[in-house]
Amino acid sequence: MHASKKPEYRAVFQPGNRSVFVLAGTPVFEAAARGGLVLNNPCGGNGTCGKCRVRVVEGNCPPSRSCRDKLSDSEIDHGIRLACQARIEDDCLIEVPEETLFDSSARILVAAEDQQLTIQPCVRKQYVEMPLPAAGDNLDDCTRLERALDQSLKTPLSVLRRMPELLRQNRFKGTAVLYGHRLLDFETDDTSETAYGIAFDLGSTTIVGTLLNLRTGREEAIAAAMNPQISVGGDLVSRILSINDRPEALEEMRLSVSAELNNLIDSLMEQSGVERRNVYELALAGNSAMQQIFCGVSPAALGEIPFSAAFQKGVICRASECGLRTHPEAPLYVFPQIGGFIGGDTVAGVMAALMHTGRRKQILIDIGTNGEIVLAVNGRLLAASTAAGPAFEGARIVQGMRAAPGAIEKVTVNEEDIEYNVIGDTSARGLCGTGLIDGAAELLRLGLIDSTGRLLKPCEAPDSVPAKIRERLIEHADEHVDFRITDKDDTGNGSEVHLYQQDIRELQLATAAIRAGTRMLLKQAEAKIEEIDEIMLAGAFGNFIRRRNARRIGLLPQVDTRKINFIGNAASMGAKIVLLSSELRQLAEKTAARTEHIELSSDPEFQNEFAEAMIFPEEELRT
Amino acid sequence: MHASKKPEYRAVFQPGNRSVFVLAGTPVFEAAARGGLVLNNPCGGNGTCGKCRVRVVEGNCPPSRSCRDKLSDSEIDHGIRLACQARIEDDCLIEVPEETLFDSSARILVAAEDQQLTIQPCVRKQYVEMPLPAAGDNLDDCTRLERALDQSLKTPLSVLRRMPELLRQNRFKGTAVLYGHRLLDFETDDTSETAYGIAFDLGSTTIVGTLLNLRTGREEAIAAAMNPQISVGGDLVSRILSINDRPEALEEMRLSVSAELNNLIDSLMEQSGVERRNVYELALAGNSAMQQIFCGVSPAALGEIPFSAAFQKGVICRASECGLRTHPEAPLYVFPQIGGFIGGDTVAGVMAALMHTGRRKQILIDIGTNGEIVLAVNGRLLAASTAAGPAFEGARIVQGMRAAPGAIEKVTVNEEDIEYNVIGDTSARGLCGTGLIDGAAELLRLGLIDSTGRLLKPCEAPDSVPAKIRERLIEHADEHVDFRITDKDDTGNGSEVHLYQQDIRELQLATAAIRAGTRMLLKQAEAKIEEIDEIMLAGAFGNFIRRRNARRIGLLPQVDTRKINFIGNAASMGAKIVLLSSELRQLAEKTAARTEHIELSSDPEFQNEFAEAMIFPEEELRT
Repeated sequence: MHASKKPEYRAVFQPGNRSVFVLAGTPVFEAAARGGLVLNNPCGGNGTCGKCRVRVVEGNCPPSRSCRDKLSDSEIDHGIRLACQARIEDDCLIEVPEETLFDSSARILVAAEDQQLTIQPCVRKQYVEMPLPAAGDNLDDCTRLERALDQSLKTPLSVLRRMPELLRQNRFKGTAVLYGHRLLDFETDDTSETAYGIAFDLGSTTIVGTLLNLRTGREEAIAAAMNPQISVGGDLVSRILSINDRPEALEEMRLSVSAELNNLIDSLMEQSGVERRNVYELALAGNSAMQQIFCGVSPAALGEIPFSAAFQKGVICRASECGLRTHPEAPLYVFPQIGGFIGGDTVAGVMAALMHTGRRKQILIDIGTNGEIVLAVNGRLLAASTAAGPAFEGARIVQGMRAAPGAIEKVTVNEEDIEYNVIGDTSARGLCGTGLIDGAAELLRLGLIDSTGRLLKPCEAPDSVPAKIRERLIEHADEHVDFRITDKDDTGNGSEVHLYQQDIRELQLATAAIRAGTRMLLKQAEAKIEEIDEIMLAGAFGNFIRRRNARRIGLLPQVDTRKINFIGNAASMGAKIVLLSSELRQLAEKTAARTEHIELSSDPEFQNEFAEAMIFPEEELRT
Repeated sequence: MHASKKPEYRAVFQPGNRSVFVLAGTPVFEAAARGGLVLNNPCGGNGTCGKCRVRVVEGNCPPSRSCRDKLSDSEIDHGIRLACQARIEDDCLIEVPEETLFDSSARILVAAEDQQLTIQPCVRKQYVEMPLPAAGDNLDDCTRLERALDQSLKTPLSVLRRMPELLRQNRFKGTAVLYGHRLLDFETDDTSETAYGIAFDLGSTTIVGTLLNLRTGREEAIAAAMNPQISVGGDLVSRILSINDRPEALEEMRLSVSAELNNLIDSLMEQSGVERRNVYELALAGNSAMQQIFCGVSPAALGEIPFSAAFQKGVICRASECGLRTHPEAPLYVFPQIGGFIGGDTVAGVMAALMHTGRRKQILIDIGTNGEIVLAVNGRLLAASTAAGPAFEGARIVQGMRAAPGAIEKVTVNEEDIEYNVIGDTSARGLCGTGLIDGAAELLRLGLIDSTGRLLKPCEAPDSVPAKIRERLIEHADEHVDFRITDKDDTGNGSEVHLYQQDIRELQLATAAIRAGTRMLLKQAEAKIEEIDEIMLAGAFGNFIRRRNARRIGLLPQVDTRKINFIGNAASMGAKIVLLSSELRQLAEKTAARTEHIELSSDPEFQNEFAEAMIFPEEELRT
C-alpha cells in the first residue's frame, strides 16, 4: 500500500536556466518560486491583475479561464500565460519577462519611482578637463581638481600618492570617482558610464551576490553560494557558541565568509566581463550575527541575555579592509541593525517592502533560521524576533530535513488518499518545512489532528476520512500515534516517512512563537489584524509556503489570502536598492533607528500569548 | 704670520646638556643659540626687557651694567644674568629656566594666550560609566557608548572589532579616545590624564621630534636626527632629480625618512617612559618636497616649471599608513602648503610667529636650503621662495662647508687684525655661512670690498686699514684678489682658509635673491620697509646670523637691529602649537589658503630688483 503519486514534470525557467521538478498541476507561479524566481503578484494570485505574465516556450501548460479573460487570443497562441493561473502539465521551458520578475531591476525602478527617487548611488563619476599648469598658474594638483569638480575633496593617501601621475598621464583630463567628498580614484579618459556595485545578502545558509550597474540600476550578474559557516553549525546559536568556546573561531569564520564572497565576486566578474577595479561600492545585509562575524566583531553578547548587538548604525569601511577584492578604495556599507538578532537583513526587507514609507499597514514575516516580524502601522515600525526557525528547517523533526533532494515539500489530499511531492528526481527521504506545514494543515482539515495538536487514533477518526488515509494512522502499543506519509516503493527502496506526534508539538512551538510575536506587536501598536492591508512573506522559506496551509495552522494570521504576498528575497532586494540610492541609504539608517525593538522573551505577556497560540485555529477562513 | 686667536671657552647649557665652544666675550645669548637653545628677546637684545634671565651655575660670566640695573644684588649673587648682556669669560655651566626658553611649552602657552586659545588638541579623552545591559535595555554597544558620551561616533573597523570586549572587560566603564566623532580607542579605567602627541619638523637637513603632553602642553622629550635623504643629495633639487631619474627612489626615500622618524619616536618613548600606544596624534611640518616625499607623493612637478605642488590643504591620514609606530589609529596631520616650494614649514612658521593674526606688520625670513620670505601687512599675507640657500650652506663657496666642526663661523675685526671662531675644539678647515657673512661685512666696513663686491688690491686699500689686515689681501698674477682669514698653525698643521672673489659673487647672488624677494613682496603689498614692526629670522641658519652683519651686506633690510628678532625653530614651534590646538589647526588651513604666493621667477620686475640688489648697501645704519 502506498500513496498515489501524481506524475512529475521538469520545468525550466529563463532567465538563469533554473530547473525544478514539480507535480502535475502545480501553478507556474509556484514552480517559478521553487526555482528561485519570485514573480509579481499584486492581486495575490487571483488572476485579476495580469501582472504575472510568462511565456511557455516549450511544453504543455493549458490556459485557464482567467488567462483567456485577461489575455488576447494572439497572446495565448504565443504561449503567454498568467503564472498564477496556468498549471504545469508537461515538461516545460518557460520564459519570464523582466517586468514580471519581482526581484529585478524593473522592480527596483518601480520601488525607486514609488518613493520618487532616482538612481543616485553614493558613488558618482564626473569627467573633467582642467587648465594645464602654466607660468602664473601653479595651483597644486588637488586644488586644481577641486576647482574643476566645483567641490572640495578628501583624498585618501593611496590616491594622493598617485595624484601627480594620474593628472599628468592624460594631460589633466579624466574621470573622478567620488564618494561624497572622498576621491576614490581618477581615471584616464571619460569613464563616467562605467560604474558597478555589488549587493550581498549574507544569509546564515545562503549568500547571494548581485552585480549592479550603478548608472542604469540593471542587474548584470547574480551568483550564490552556501555560507561556509554551515560546517560550524547550521543555526546561529551553535556558531556563536563555537566562538565562545574557541575565540579564534571568529577569525576563521570571518575569513571563510570573506573567501566565499571573493569567490562570488570572481564569478560575477566572469559572468559579466566587468573588471573588479570598476566595482566602486558594495552593500551587505545579513542578520546581526552574520554581519558581526563578517565584520570580525564577536557575536558573543548576542548569545547571552539581554542579546546585545555591537552596533546599530550601518558600518562603512573599505571593502579591502574586510579582505574583499574590488576597487581598493571601494566603500562597503554593512546595513544598520535594529537590535538583538534583528539585523540588517530585516532593515533591508523593510526597505524593499516600502514599509518605511508608512503608506500602508503592513506586516513583514521572515521565517529563516530565526523568525523576524515587523509591523508598520500608525506611523510606527515595530519589530520582534522569535526562535521559530529550527523546526521549519528540519531540526527536531524526527525525519526532518532541509529543502533538499529527497525532501517531501508538499502534501495534498484528494478524494481517496494523500498526494505528495519530493524535491528532485528521487524517492522521499524526509520532511522539510513546507511539507510539515502542509501535512499538519491537511490533517487538521480532515479532523485527524484536534485543535490541541493531538493526532487521533484510527478509531477516533471522523467517518468522512477516506479509508486509505485512515489506514495511514498508526497506533503504537504505548498509545502514541503517528501518520505515515510515504511507504517504501514496490522494490523495497526509499524510506517510510512519518509525521510523528512530537513533530506536531515542535510545529506548534514554532508556529506559536511567530503567532504570539505577531499578536504582541499588534497589541503594542494598539492595532487589529483586520486593519492590516498586507502581510508579506520574505526569506528563503517564506517563498515556498502554501499561504492557505500556513494560515490554517496559525503560522500566518487569519486574513484573506489575497492580503498575503510573497516578496522574495527581500534582504537582497533591500541591499540592492540601498546600493543604488544614497537617499534610501539615509532612510535605512533612520528606519533602523526608529524601529521599536520589542523584546519578547523578557515580557510575561508574551508567555501568555505564546501559551494561547499553541492551540491551532478552530476553523478555516473561506478566502 | 697668523691671525690672533682669542681664548676659547666651553659653555654647557641645561636643559639638554648642550655643549659649545665660543670665543671669550661671546654673549651668553649667542652661545646658547649655538647650542640650539633660542632664548626670549622681546627687546631685541638691548638688555631692557629682562626676559632672557639665565643662571650661571659654574664659571665666570661677569654681570654687565644692564644686568646690575635689571637684577637685584641677591639675584646677581645667585648667578642670575641677562643672557643678551653677560659675556662668557670662562668655561661655564649655565642653566636656562623654562620661562626664558623661546622654543618651549611656556612660549606655547604664551602663544596660545595671545590668541585667546586654550590647549585643546583634536584628540580628547573622556571617562564614562555606562548602565550595564539588562532585561529591557539591550542597546547595542556603540549606541550605549554614544549615549554615555553624548555624541555620535564613527568607529573604525579595527576598534569596532574589539568593541564588545573593550566594553565588557571593565564592566562598561572606561575612557574613550576621541578625534572629533572618530573613536580611536576605548581604554580600561580612567586614563583621561594620559595623552601624548608628537610634533615633527621635517627639515631637508635635520629632523626634530618633540613629544608633547596633550593635557598640559608640556614638552616631555625632544629628539633630533639628520635627514637620511642627505645621502641622496644635500639640496632639494638633487633629491627631486634623483626621483625623476629613478622613480623607485621615491619609495626608498620615503621609507628611509619613515624609519628615521621611528627611531626618533623610539628615542622619545625611551627618554620619557611614555608608551607608544598613548601617542594619539602627530603633526608634521616640512617644505613641499619633504612633505610630499614623506607622504609618498612624487615631487617631480615641483622640479619643473611652474613648480606645482600636489596638495595645498593639510593631509590627514593614520600615522600607521605612513609606517609610523604610535597608536595604530593615531591621526597624522601633514601641514597645508602655500604653493610651489613654500610648504608646511613656512605655514608652521607663520603660525608660530603669530603672523596670521595680522596684529603687527611683520616679515618672516627663513634662510634654509631655500629662502622663504613671508610678509604680513594690511591684512594680507604674501610669500615668496628664492633659491638663496646653497651659498649659505657652503655650496659653491671655494672653501665652503656646513656649520660643522672646523668651520669658521664668526669673523670680527679689532684694532690690529681680524679674529675668528671655529666650531669645535679643532683648527679651521673652511668657512660656513655665518663666517662668510661676517667676513664680507667686515671687509665692507674696512673698505676692502667696494659696493659692487670687488675685493680691492692691497695697493688700493684705504690707509685706515691696519697693516696686519692689509697683508691678508693676496693679489695673484692674473690680478684676482683673495683674503686670507687663517694660516697654518705654528706646527704647520691646519689649512689656510681664504675668502675668494668668487665667494663674494656667490654671496651677492644669494643675498640679492632674498633682498629682491623681500622688496617684491613689499611692492606687491604697497608697503614700505619703514612701516615694518618686526623682522623675524627663522630656521637653522637664521638663528646664528649676526644681525648687524647680515644687514650690512643687505641680506636683511636696512632697519634698526632691534626690530630684527630670532624666533628659533619656527617650523617646529608651529607644528607643536597646531598639535595642541584644534582651533590653530583650522587657522593654519585658512592661513595657507589665504597666503598669496608671489611667483618670482616668472616676474620680469624681479629680475630688475635682483640686478639692483647685487650692489651692497653703501652705508651702514647706526642702530
